[in-house]
Amino acid sequence: MIYKFYGDKQKGTDMELLKNRILKDGKIIGDSIIKVDSFLNHQLDVELFNEMGKEFRLRFQDEAVTKILTVEASGIAIACIAAQYFKVPVVFAKKHEALNIDADTYHSEVYSFTKQKSYNIRVSKRYISAEDHVLIIDDFLANGKAASGLVDIVQQAGATVAGVGIVIEKGFQKGREVLLQRGIRIESLAVIQSIGSDTIVFG
Amino acid sequence: MIYKFYGDKQKGTDMELLKNRILKDGKIIGDSIIKVDSFLNHQLDVELFNEMGKEFRLRFQDEAVTKILTVEASGIAIACIAAQYFKVPVVFAKKHEALNIDADTYHSEVYSFTKQKSYNIRVSKRYISAEDHVLIIDDFLANGKAASGLVDIVQQAGATVAGVGIVIEKGFQKGREVLLQRGIRIESLAVIQSIGSDTIVFG
Repeated sequence: MIYKFYGDKQKGTDMELLKNRILKDGKIIGDSIIKVDSFLNHQLDVELFNEMGKEFRLRFQDEAVTKILTVEASGIAIACIAAQYFKVPVVFAKKHEALNIDADTYHSEVYSFTKQKSYNIRVSKRYISAEDHVLIIDDFLANGKAASGLVDIVQQAGATVAGVGIVIEKGFQKGREVLLQRGIRIESLAVIQSIGSDTIVFG
Repeated sequence: MIYKFYGDKQKGTDMELLKNRILKDGKIIGDSIIKVDSFLNHQLDVELFNEMGKEFRLRFQDEAVTKILTVEASGIAIACIAAQYFKVPVVFAKKHEALNIDADTYHSEVYSFTKQKSYNIRVSKRYISAEDHVLIIDDFLANGKAASGLVDIVQQAGATVAGVGIVIEKGFQKGREVLLQRGIRIESLAVIQSIGSDTIVFG
C-alpha cells in the first residue's frame, strides 16, 4: 500500500489517471525503484495505454511527427498504442544481435544501470530518413541513457527530434537534465520526485 | 520484387490485405526466410495491425478470452493492438538466457533456430491464473518452439488456451503439427506454403 502524497510541484501537468494507478498498483523497492509490472511493463493495461496515447498526442499536437521511435521491449506497447493517435508508423530499436537484422544500421551504445552492462541499440537505416520528425517514446526516464541513445540514432539519420514522451520520469535522477542539455523537449505523464518506504512524491 | 503465385489452397481464409503486403514488401532470403521488417517486426504498420487485430477477434469470437499472452519483442505490438478488440490485458513473456529462474514465475525453455541458442521465457505467476482463458499471439509460426513454450506457461498456471493466433505461418515447417498434437487451435492470418527465389506460395 502506497499512501498518496503530492509534493509542492503537483500543479504540473501530471496525468491524474496514471498517477492514481501508480499509487494503487506500484510497488516500492528500496529507495529508487518503483515496480509497475502489473500494468506497464509485464502485464499491459491497454485501456490505460490508450489514455496515455491520447495525452501524448495532446502534448505534441504542435509537432508534425512522422514516426515514433522506441526501444524493445516495454516501449513497443506504449509506442504502438500512441501511434494510433498520430497516425504514423512505429520503429523500435533492437537490443540484441540476431541473424535476420540488417548490417546497415544506426546504432548507439547504452549503459543499463538495472542490468549493469552496456548494450547496443540498433535501427535499420531504411526506417529513419533525413525527412523524418521523430517522437521518441519510452516507459521510464531515469538516467536518460536509453533516450539519449535513441536521440543519437535520430541524429545519425539527419532527422529531427520532435521530443521525448515518457510515461514515468524519475525526477530525482538526471535524465531530464541530460536531454535538456541536448536541447530535447521532454513530456512525462508522471514525474516522481522521490520514493520513500511507503510514499511516492509526485512533482 | 516478389511475383504473386497462389497455390491450390488459396481458397482458405488467408487475409488478403496481409498477403498483398507480404508480396509487395517482403524480402526473400534463401529458401526459408521471408523478411518483413518494413511493416511487421522492426518498423510497425499500426494501421495494418488494427486490421489484423479485428481479424483475430473475428476468428476467435467464439472464445471467452480473458488475457492475451505473447513473447517479447515483436509479438508485443500485435498483441496490444489486438487486445483493443478483445478488451483484455496483454501479458508478455520475458526472454532471458537460460540461467537461474525466479521461483515465482512460470517458465519454459525455448530453442531459437534464428539465434541458434536456447533461452527461457518467463511470466510472473501473478499475471496468469487458473481462471484465465488465454489467447496466445505471435508474429511468426515456424517450428512452433516459442508458441509451445507459451502453451507450457498457460498450462503451468492451470489456465486454458483459447488458441494461438499467428500473423505469418511457415506452412512448410512443423509448428502447426506440433501444436495440433497438443490439441491447440491455430489461426494464421497468412500461411506460406513455400518460398522460391522470387515467388511466395500461399496456401
